[in-house]
Amino acid sequence: MTTMRRGLILFAHGARAASWAVPFERLRDQTRERVAGAVVELAFLELMTPSLPDTIDAMRAQGIDDITVVPVFLGKGGHLLRDLPALCDEVRAAHPALTLNVAGAIGEDPGVQRAMTDYCVNSLGG
Amino acid sequence: MTTMRRGLILFAHGARAASWAVPFERLRDQTRERVAGAVVELAFLELMTPSLPDTIDAMRAQGIDDITVVPVFLGKGGHLLRDLPALCDEVRAAHPALTLNVAGAIGEDPGVQRAMTDYCVNSLGG
Repeated sequence: MTTMRRGLILFAHGARAASWAVPFERLRDQTRERVAGAVVELAFLELMTPSLPDTIDAMRAQGIDDITVVPVFLGKGGHLLRDLPALCDEVRAAHPALTLNVAGAIGEDPGVQRAMTDYCVNSLGG
Repeated sequence: MTTMRRGLILFAHGARAASWAVPFERLRDQTRERVAGAVVELAFLELMTPSLPDTIDAMRAQGIDDITVVPVFLGKGGHLLRDLPALCDEVRAAHPALTLNVAGAIGEDPGVQRAMTDYCVNSLGG
């Protein structure tokens, strides 16, 4: 058995309505199917659990020492400009041996932008 | 010259940081390039302008009588379950002759989900 030493965390905002999480859970499941040798988890900024620090603590307890965080946010506002960096500082202080990578906002990816444009264009119908 | 009678509104949350709107503005511009015969605008729920009702008022004033709203939200929480329907009720009461269509959340589209999965997988690198 190979020990998985890498983690991928899909970091989302969270909401009061449980239905909100459905597309994020689907994204996590679809990502898991395509990623070998990494643990893939969802984590939330607020209103839903687990939090990002709790998720990282749990991964560290599994021996994972290399974690990539993907912000599943459309735009880069206060949550990604201030809240996420503050959480990452906290995590790095608690886990000095951890390699922590943070990707750009998913909504700024050109491929995601193309797919969103397709959806907008198609929503007009004939 | 053909009068454009259809409108497409990309409806987003809004944020305090101006940088947040950049991918939404790009989405609007890319959609405009591919849509002929429809006016394409951004509108915001809060913190940014214009609002959805103001955008619809302006489209009505241009003679547009068929409007599609695309919620540029990843998940369907309180904003799409309650706030957007309330805004649509308000708009329909003010504009009884308007045809108002509301698409599903952009984040629940299978094509957008696929592109987001690609981004998550690729973010792990080699």
